[in-house]
Amino acid sequence: MKKNKAKIGIIGASGYTGAELVRILSCHDGVEIDLLTAERRAGRELASVFPHLAQLALPRLVSLDDANFERLDLVFCCLPHGKTQEVVAGLPAALKVIDLSADFRLADPDMYATWYGHAHRAPELQGEAVYGLTEFARAEVAPARLVANPGCYPTAAQLALNPLLEQAQIETQDIIIDAKSGVSGAGRTAKEANLFAEVGEGIHAYGLAGHRHAPEIEQGLSRAAKTPITVNFTPHLVPMNRGILETVYVRLANGAEVGELRESLRRRFQDEAFVHLCPEGVVPATRHVRGSNHCLIGVFRDRLPGRAILIAVIDNLVKGASGQAVQNMNLMFSLPESTGLRQEPLFP
Amino acid sequence: MKKNKAKIGIIGASGYTGAELVRILSCHDGVEIDLLTAERRAGRELASVFPHLAQLALPRLVSLDDANFERLDLVFCCLPHGKTQEVVAGLPAALKVIDLSADFRLADPDMYATWYGHAHRAPELQGEAVYGLTEFARAEVAPARLVANPGCYPTAAQLALNPLLEQAQIETQDIIIDAKSGVSGAGRTAKEANLFAEVGEGIHAYGLAGHRHAPEIEQGLSRAAKTPITVNFTPHLVPMNRGILETVYVRLANGAEVGELRESLRRRFQDEAFVHLCPEGVVPATRHVRGSNHCLIGVFRDRLPGRAILIAVIDNLVKGASGQAVQNMNLMFSLPESTGLRQEPLFP
Amino acid sequence: MKKNKAKIGIIGASGYTGAELVRILSCHDGVEIDLLTAERRAGRELASVFPHLAQLALPRLVSLDDANFERLDLVFCCLPHGKTQEVVAGLPAALKVIDLSADFRLADPDMYATWYGHAHRAPELQGEAVYGLTEFARAEVAPARLVANPGCYPTAAQLALNPLLEQAQIETQDIIIDAKSGVSGAGRTAKEANLFAEVGEGIHAYGLAGHRHAPEIEQGLSRAAKTPITVNFTPHLVPMNRGILETVYVRLANGAEVGELRESLRRRFQDEAFVHLCPEGVVPATRHVRGSNHCLIGVFRDRLPGRAILIAVIDNLVKGASGQAVQNMNLMFSLPESTGLRQEPLFP
Amino acid sequence: MKKNKAKIGIIGASGYTGAELVRILSCHDGVEIDLLTAERRAGRELASVFPHLAQLALPRLVSLDDANFERLDLVFCCLPHGKTQEVVAGLPAALKVIDLSADFRLADPDMYATWYGHAHRAPELQGEAVYGLTEFARAEVAPARLVANPGCYPTAAQLALNPLLEQAQIETQDIIIDAKSGVSGAGRTAKEANLFAEVGEGIHAYGLAGHRHAPEIEQGLSRAAKTPITVNFTPHLVPMNRGILETVYVRLANGAEVGELRESLRRRFQDEAFVHLCPEGVVPATRHVRGSNHCLIGVFRDRLPGRAILIAVIDNLVKGASGQAVQNMNLMFSLPESTGLRQEPLFP
Repeated sequence: MKKNKAKIGIIGASGYTGAELVRILSCHDGVEIDLLTAERRAGRELASVFPHLAQLALPRLVSLDDANFERLDLVFCCLPHGKTQEVVAGLPAALKVIDLSADFRLADPDMYATWYGHAHRAPELQGEAVYGLTEFARAEVAPARLVANPGCYPTAAQLALNPLLEQAQIETQDIIIDAKSGVSGAGRTAKEANLFAEVGEGIHAYGLAGHRHAPEIEQGLSRAAKTPITVNFTPHLVPMNRGILETVYVRLANGAEVGELRESLRRRFQDEAFVHLCPEGVVPATRHVRGSNHCLIGVFRDRLPGRAILIAVIDNLVKGASGQAVQNMNLMFSLPESTGLRQEPLFP
Repeated sequence: MKKNKAKIGIIGASGYTGAELVRILSCHDGVEIDLLTAERRAGRELASVFPHLAQLALPRLVSLDDANFERLDLVFCCLPHGKTQEVVAGLPAALKVIDLSADFRLADPDMYATWYGHAHRAPELQGEAVYGLTEFARAEVAPARLVANPGCYPTAAQLALNPLLEQAQIETQDIIIDAKSGVSGAGRTAKEANLFAEVGEGIHAYGLAGHRHAPEIEQGLSRAAKTPITVNFTPHLVPMNRGILETVYVRLANGAEVGELRESLRRRFQDEAFVHLCPEGVVPATRHVRGSNHCLIGVFRDRLPGRAILIAVIDNLVKGASGQAVQNMNLMFSLPESTGLRQEPLFP
Repeated sequence: MKKNKAKIGIIGASGYTGAELVRILSCHDGVEIDLLTAERRAGRELASVFPHLAQLALPRLVSLDDANFERLDLVFCCLPHGKTQEVVAGLPAALKVIDLSADFRLADPDMYATWYGHAHRAPELQGEAVYGLTEFARAEVAPARLVANPGCYPTAAQLALNPLLEQAQIETQDIIIDAKSGVSGAGRTAKEANLFAEVGEGIHAYGLAGHRHAPEIEQGLSRAAKTPITVNFTPHLVPMNRGILETVYVRLANGAEVGELRESLRRRFQDEAFVHLCPEGVVPATRHVRGSNHCLIGVFRDRLPGRAILIAVIDNLVKGASGQAVQNMNLMFSLPESTGLRQEPLFP
Repeated sequence: MKKNKAKIGIIGASGYTGAELVRILSCHDGVEIDLLTAERRAGRELASVFPHLAQLALPRLVSLDDANFERLDLVFCCLPHGKTQEVVAGLPAALKVIDLSADFRLADPDMYATWYGHAHRAPELQGEAVYGLTEFARAEVAPARLVANPGCYPTAAQLALNPLLEQAQIETQDIIIDAKSGVSGAGRTAKEANLFAEVGEGIHAYGLAGHRHAPEIEQGLSRAAKTPITVNFTPHLVPMNRGILETVYVRLANGAEVGELRESLRRRFQDEAFVHLCPEGVVPATRHVRGSNHCLIGVFRDRLPGRAILIAVIDNLVKGASGQAVQNMNLMFSLPESTGLRQEPLFP
């Protein structure tokens, strides 16, 4: 309707996070999608890759080489990690970028090299990038040019744990994060391990030797606690499309009680549009956030004295990826933060 | 935001179609929900019944006896069939009603008695009720007081077949509708047959002795063809939450060819916001309409000469229930028909 | 335990039908597995490819080039179609072979060339191969050297239709087969289309332009009817691992009634161990055959006069592949036909 | 076939564990099923309740009052907890009983009363009952008259933890059991919470206030450790039919290292037919035990120093219920322990 809609591009639009951005932005009145890139599908309509988006008027897919970034106000980058850093380095210097890959999330170049097996290829950008955990980084995100959008698992973990670490209510060296994720978190690449017949009717753990979200979680928690933190992070794959549930086992510190943890979270999130403390006794379920940008957190008594249980749920593709990205974009454009994110969860 | 939002009530808000109305209307700027009834849950918040809606500000559930209908502009009635007719008969005479049960769908009292085993208890209303298959009944729905919202299976069947019957392009006595539905279509009542462990990892047909949607489909097709039609209607239960796919086998009539069927559907729906003919070769899938009000239709050549295959998909809770109900409400309020229905499908 | 167990090989053991053969044969007292081939996984244990079989003592995987066929009594060939014909042509001339691919199922070389896009590369074997639909081919299977094991869809279709065609109780030119299959039928190859996130929570039709099982079904039905038959065959993909359900719409012929169809099937299968007519009113479900070699068939009245509905269910990997292959092997070895096939269905 | 088969009864045959016993015993050559009871379904065939068992020759369902126990050698009791104790008390005093309910699992009457809200109604039997965790109780099970078959969650937990507690390799007051179960564990009773549409496409925790399997686990672990143990036990419901996966977080004690835990489990289970330590790096998955009596256990390094991760998987209906019950029966009849339990897992 408005004349002055911001012009948006999506690099790597043929993956799930790209499609999810298109879906969310189709209800956003302040922007219009002007560019969609996809290398192998260049020249085709997005509808041929994602038929569920066929009813939208969208530009045709183009290759990166053919993309015109000059007229754009912001791009979302949805490329695989590793590849992203070089692409972002080649974008116009003034173009705002929200990167949904892992490439700019780890601030420490050594830690990046350790976990990804090679030196970072755009170290100067790594320094510039703002880690966009929205509810904890508004002041930095708003003026940023390059935002590193958090990973799905780290988003849920940090939202639940950061307030408690800030208040020093839990021990820093005894945090166990048992995470369960739907399969869309693995992306759209064809792999035997993610076939329906391999994943249906079963559950298993993976990444036990060290999942790359572990250092991202530890970086965030360490900042909140102002002390280095190591965590147990054990992800599991669940036969569902969407959703992350994290059951977090913590040890109480400094005499804190379960009710005080609850109170900290309540105070911290009481004015938030998307992060919510569940009423006592209500247990968060992934299906209660499916398709929405909400995060639900519950706090529970543990049978083990001196311990507590936290449960956090998000939709991995929304609050854990594209939804949070739009939330960050809204901040960067000085728009109301929930613009385009009003869709309530789809249940059943 | 606006002062003059229409005031809406939902009778029977503790079922899936009630929850789906709340979800859809939460994005509708022209109405506000003023009343929610539920007998067994009266006095509780809707959030205790549907935690996924906990972020919305909503009135508390009340029992029918305690409901004040005077201030309302329209009610959606989401009660089970059989019970509905008496409740609707007791509503204020001027109150607009959209009924999502089967009670007012069959215009012929004898047919109702045959399929439901008792004489209709509000026959005068049965005569008044308008059958609200939106794309084929706008002129009747707009001024109606009581709209019988179509069933999920009949919606998909009629959207695909009506244009072809109107054009006399298919035989009227050789229509086979092989339908597949997700489990939410069975409602939220606790039944052994709908337990996860009964339904997961399998498929089966049901209602072979005669499903109550058969006469509703036949009534609609007969009107379109202007001749009495009997159909084969064979529903199957699929291990998914949402979605209906109908594979319809038809015999060509009057020398029609497959391309002509396609052309009839194209012309009929080219200006519709929610009903779409798929491009040649594109096969409709339920996941491409999930959570949206869209209906996709495909037309395909049959190996059997003189025959054709139609495939139609909808989300049974949206276009097959609450979405179409909101579409009808918009007509009755002279609002743009797609108000509140802009949400694109959720995939994956 | 016995001295004289037959020695068995499985070519292409790293796919689902190979694994299923191993599972079934682990309960078979008359044979021992002496050879397992897999090209890319050669040198590894089968347990590394299929951890669910880790408790069995099995030979290590070898490549075809390193395989010693001399000591074997029979091989199951589980390679993809196209590749199979050359491999089988290279096997020792006296070695019994049960081929689970499509390569030897079509007896007519021209039909093969039409559907597979190239001339058959072992036409002399194509002539020799016996089509192993066990219940209809015992006399040919028992002495055969090369058995073409039927496809999953064709097995269910022929078991339900052959007796009726033999009795001329149904029209031959009006057979509609609406088929629904679990995802394991697509094999273990990594394809985007079969990812969990693509297939979960949805249903769609595929192969509308012509599925390669159509000519195989038509060949079998034509033999039973002794007249050329064309069918409508419309497969759908269902979000479950295993199972095929076929809903078959037929037109009654020669004054036959539904009860007479039922009686024909009852008589035909009353002494069979694995094919069963359901009692009147009982509706076959895939979950009632899961993991077993059973086929259930139901016959139902149609609302359309002069028509009937058949429903047949099998486990696509058992009766539709490896189970029927073992049944054929038992015949070829003069063992009781159900040896190793006593496992009842796994439900839920 | 043999003359001297033991005669078996199943009380409460219309639930999942009853059906699973019938499935397993259909491959058991040493017993025959002589009695099946079910109150509401008395007079019907089991096939009408469980169509997947229709191919077996079985006695008709009778009510408890009409059951003749005199000729039986052993009964499996599959009634709900609470009801069981009175029924078992009324059985002939010499009849062997394997009870699959929770009624006789807790040895301490006070603990029973605390968790179940009423005094035990057959306290003398409670004292007599042997807790049948087979691999740890052979000497007691073999001569027992009444065996309390372990719960599904407790079976997996104790198999993984008992050997480590016996060796004092882990701390006793810091055991966290994050458990994930398929929905069949909730039984066949019609409850809204277990409907497909409620459970599909999501995961949630439950029983956070205290699940009744917690004291059973603690009782078993305390016996193994010879010191009272309290655990964190947090169960989750996963959208699959069968399977339990338990991720157990433990703190190393007495200088033990991860490799030593592995070695203890290896030694403890190396001669077991059904409990297996996975090779290093292999991660147990529920789908790798589905339908079988196997339990797989893996041991993994934790990022947190001084900690380790255990993962155990079983099929909740087999090793977690009916399979272990048959294993116990074999011991009580002095039959080879794996008789009837040779079926390998069903995957995919």
